This record gives sequence, structure tokens and C-alpha cells, in this order.
Amino acid sequence: MTKQELNGNVRPESMERITTPELAREFIELQTEAIREQVGKGRVLLALSGGVDSSVCAALISRAIGKQLCCVHVNHGLLRKGEPEQVCRVFGEQFDVNLIYVDAVDRFLDNLAGVSDPERKRKIIGKIFIDVFAEEAAKIEGVGFLGQGTIYPDILESDGVKSHHNVGGLPENMRDFELVEPVKLLYKDEVRVVGKALGLPDSMVYRQPFPGPGLGVRCVGAITRDRLEALREADAVVREEIEKLPARPWQYFAVVPDIKSTGIKDGKRYMGWPVVIRAINTVDAVTATTAELPFSTLCAIRDRILSTVEGVNRVLWDFSDKPVSTIEWE
Amino acid sequence: MTKQELNGNVRPESMERITTPELAREFIELQTEAIREQVGKGRVLLALSGGVDSSVCAALISRAIGKQLCCVHVNHGLLRKGEPEQVCRVFGEQFDVNLIYVDAVDRFLDNLAGVSDPERKRKIIGKIFIDVFAEEAAKIEGVGFLGQGTIYPDILESDGVKSHHNVGGLPENMRDFELVEPVKLLYKDEVRVVGKALGLPDSMVYRQPFPGPGLGVRCVGAITRDRLEALREADAVVREEIEKLPARPWQYFAVVPDIKSTGIKDGKRYMGWPVVIRAINTVDAVTATTAELPFSTLCAIRDRILSTVEGVNRVLWDFSDKPVSTIEWE
Repeated sequence: MTKQELNGNVRPESMERITTPELAREFIELQTEAIREQVGKGRVLLALSGGVDSSVCAALISRAIGKQLCCVHVNHGLLRKGEPEQVCRVFGEQFDVNLIYVDAVDRFLDNLAGVSDPERKRKIIGKIFIDVFAEEAAKIEGVGFLGQGTIYPDILESDGVKSHHNVGGLPENMRDFELVEPVKLLYKDEVRVVGKALGLPDSMVYRQPFPGPGLGVRCVGAITRDRLEALREADAVVREEIEKLPARPWQYFAVVPDIKSTGIKDGKRYMGWPVVIRAINTVDAVTATTAELPFSTLCAIRDRILSTVEGVNRVLWDFSDKPVSTIEWE
Repeated sequence: MTKQELNGNVRPESMERITTPELAREFIELQTEAIREQVGKGRVLLALSGGVDSSVCAALISRAIGKQLCCVHVNHGLLRKGEPEQVCRVFGEQFDVNLIYVDAVDRFLDNLAGVSDPERKRKIIGKIFIDVFAEEAAKIEGVGFLGQGTIYPDILESDGVKSHHNVGGLPENMRDFELVEPVKLLYKDEVRVVGKALGLPDSMVYRQPFPGPGLGVRCVGAITRDRLEALREADAVVREEIEKLPARPWQYFAVVPDIKSTGIKDGKRYMGWPVVIRAINTVDAVTATTAELPFSTLCAIRDRILSTVEGVNRVLWDFSDKPVSTIEWE
């Protein structure tokens, strides 16, 4: 493969599937040179969510151009437990990247208060995200490039035509930025192999898929801070216990619907939310089957949640397949 | 035991536990005579819910005084699938009892419309029940007695003092009725043995406990007719599938909370309620543990519900213990 080919939007037929550390290192070398050539002495801006794609992209660009890369991590309050901390630890310390951490929790949650319609919630989250990112970008001088963790399925899905699908919502001034998309010809499994070769931690490289609006779609209905916090804590327990299993499901998480039921604590009535456990397997997310969780795992999750998570008095298991259910609740 | 002792509110120490058909028949003979002596040529009115206690009570009184007994079955719309039909079949046909079936479904559901507070729901159901029963009673002439399925634990719970605990809400004119309580010295297990000896069907005699406000407390929040219907259908599936197990839990039922989530049907978005499966074991209902349902049973329930019950797109299993959860959701 040549550097020329790396810049195109079509994966060359000759390109070998990256399955080994050797192939990954070869790709990393080639891509490092390509990024250096493209960027020169320019500055690259990148929105770093902490997901696999943006993380590998950031690590690659950082390896190539060091402090010329500036990453912006927007904490919208809808991240999972420990995620913002991990991003800061891995990129701010381990990779010593130029990292701007933006605590936008209040801004997101204030704007989401009282909004129960799923579509409106998603739009608000998307819009504020763009706003916050654009505001941060405006503060940084001399940026000419935008790093993006586009991967090959993204390009295939947009028929190879609309490869800029991630920046559709960006303001005019940012649309002029030249894109740096070092993993755009890779499939997901290759992105992981490359990430591992770059030294990213397993918990980042093998991270399960997480929706853009984050916990927002799992704090069903109008998000409140207390219920969101209960969801975040419960979700951490669900993940920890399920990760003790010999084989992990494709996706596993908690949902907290906006409903309370009666419970009893210390002899008194204790109204609380139910925590819903969801664990599914799928190939393409178009259909999905529920993962058969052992009763002992379910009980371990239940007992930890009910003894530690404030405001919860019931644990349920959503063992529905897609269809008729969907993977997420909204 | 003497007929005299049968009339008191204290179970004689000499009274043998009724565990066999022989002992049951002995009790039935004695009680038949006692009822005949008490009632003479009078008329007895009885609110027949279809539960074990009122059913055995009705069967006993009917055996003693035939058409002098008048049963009123109030269908409040919150009964389980097939229950009103069973009451009519067993008592109207098999026992050939004087049975007044009151279809009060609209009256109950109209009054419950929009009411989401559990306490208010219970009060409305209780109040309308008394009203309907009193109205029916007023239409019948010459009633001097009120049959009641009081059992011994009811008397023990009220310290032996307030044995009329079930009629506290009755209007003045009915409080003058003399009570006929033929099973008031029996424990629940004895009531069942007597019921079986009287020829009541197993599905009635071994019926699991069912709350007074019926499905009302399981159609969580403000009851709507469509959600109540979904609950009734789903509950029937839960009961049928769980009754295929070698050992039945103490109580098992469905709950449908007032919340919708996204689903997909025929390629289109399909918003629907979740059905919650609940199955618990307990000795005294003060504490309870979840029954470990086999995954195959859970899946059988889920698949039947999702393919037949309108408006449902998700099935959950509530496997929480009491405490911190309660058996019912409200």
C-alpha cells in the first residue's frame, strides 16, 4: 500500500486485513508519514469522545505530530462512570497530548431539563455539543485541520460520496478545515488492532459500542440529575459484573426508566426507580438476541445495586430480542 | 367440636387440623347444621369475589340453605382473565346458586380514569365496590344475614376483638345484618381442604393470592382500558406458562407500568409498554424471595406475549426480593 492510496476513500483491493501487531505497526508507520506530509507545521483539532475510533485516531495523529494536535474532550454529563477520567489519564498523561477538557455538564443538563421527547433530547445534545466544540475551536489559533475517527463502514454507508458525514453540523468556519482521517480505510476490528499496537489500554480498545447521546437515551424520559446519577452508578455495576463472565455479550448496560414503584427499607415505604439490565448479542445491530445471563450474575448485580445505589428499589432484566424490541429504550 | 364452639371466635384447642377429606366432610356436616340453625328461613347475602375464602364460604352456605343464599359477584374490570366467567360457571351452573352478576366495569374504570396515586386508586375501588354491593343488596327483599369468608388469621390479626373487619366500610343498614362466617375458625390450608371436599375446582381452591384491588395495582399509575387489557392478556400468559413448571411459586403475575419505549415491527417504529414478570416465594408475605424461573420459561412467556399482546414491545423480569422491593409495584 502506498501513502497515495491511504488518502483516497476507496480501500485498495491489495490492502491486507490488519490482524497482527506486525501489520498494525506497518500501517502506523505509513500513516505517521502520511499525516506528517499532509499537516506539515499545521495544527489539527480533534473532538475526543473516548470511543474506540476517536481514541485511535487521536493516538495516531499524536504519534505523528505531537503537540500540533489539540484534542477537545467535552464532558456532557452523559458519559459513563470513569470515562472522562480515563480520557484525561490516557491522553493527558500517557500520550501527553494537548488536551482541553471542557466541563459542560451544567450546560447540557440545564438545556435538557424537562425534555422527555427522545428526538428532541438527541437534537439538543447534538446541537450543544457542536456549539461547545466550536466555541473551544475558536479559542485556538492557527488550526487548519480537523481530525476525525471516520472508519471504513462509515464511508461505505454513505456510498463513498459523503465522507464528511460527521461534520455536517459544524459551523461554516470549521467546514473549511481540511480533514485528517487516518483510520478511514479500516474496519472496526483493524482499528482495535492498531489501537492496541499504539499502546491504548484494553478497556478503551475493546470498549463496547456506546451511543452518541450517551446515557441520555438510557435515562429514559426527561433527564434529572439524581436519576442520571443512579443510572451511572448502576451501569458501572452491570458492566463490572458482566465483565467477570468468560464471554462478554456484544453490548451490556443499564437503563433507568422514569417511573417509581413501592419498596420497603428499614420498615418504611421507600419509593424508587427500577434499574433495567440489558445485555445483547448481535452481528450488525439490525437484529439482536438477548444474552442469557446466569442467575448468579443477575443476583450479584441486583444485590450490589440495591445496597449501594441511592433511589433504586428494584432490578429488572430486559431479555427481549430485536425485533420487536430495540437495543436501546429510546 | 360442638356447634356451640363453631359460633365462637376462639378456635377450641381440641379442634383437629383439617388435613383430610374425612375431616373436611365432618366439618362440612357440622357447619351445614350450624348454618341452618342460625339462618332458619332467613336470607343470606354474600359478596362473591371468586377468591378461595369467599368461594368456600359460598359453597358451604349454599349446601346448607340452597336458594336462601344470594351471591353478588361484582365485576369491577380488574379481575384476571377468565375469572368472572369461572365464578358464573361454578356457582351459577355447578352449584346452582342464586347469583347476581353485576357488570360494573364502566363505573369503576370511568371513576379511575386519570387517577395515578396508588392510595387514591385503592380508595376509589373500595368505595365503589361497597356502593355497588349496597345498591344490589337494597334490591333484594328480606335479607337478614351477611355471609363472609373471614378466616382464622383475619380474627387473630384483629386480636379477636374486631372480627367484622371486612364490613367496616358497609353502610349503616347493612351493619345490622347478622354475620354468617362458616370458615372463621379455619386456617388457609384447611379452607382449601374443605373447598376441595365441597367439589370446587382446583383452579379456584389452589388459586394464588390476589389483591383486593385486583389488576388495578398492577396496571401501575393511571389505569387506561387498553393498558389494562394488555395486562390481563399478558398475565394470563405468565400464569399459564409458570403453571407448567413442576413446582409453582407462591405468587406469579404480570405488571404493566405506565411507560413506553421504542420497538420495531414490520420495519417500522413501534412504541409499546413493557410487561414485567414477577414470581415470588414467601411464607408470610413479610419477606419474599424471587422464584428462579428457567430461561426457557422466561423465553416462552416473552415470545407468546410479544406475538399476541397488542401494545407491548418488551418483556422484563423483576427478580427483586422483599425487602427492598415489595411484592406488588404499588
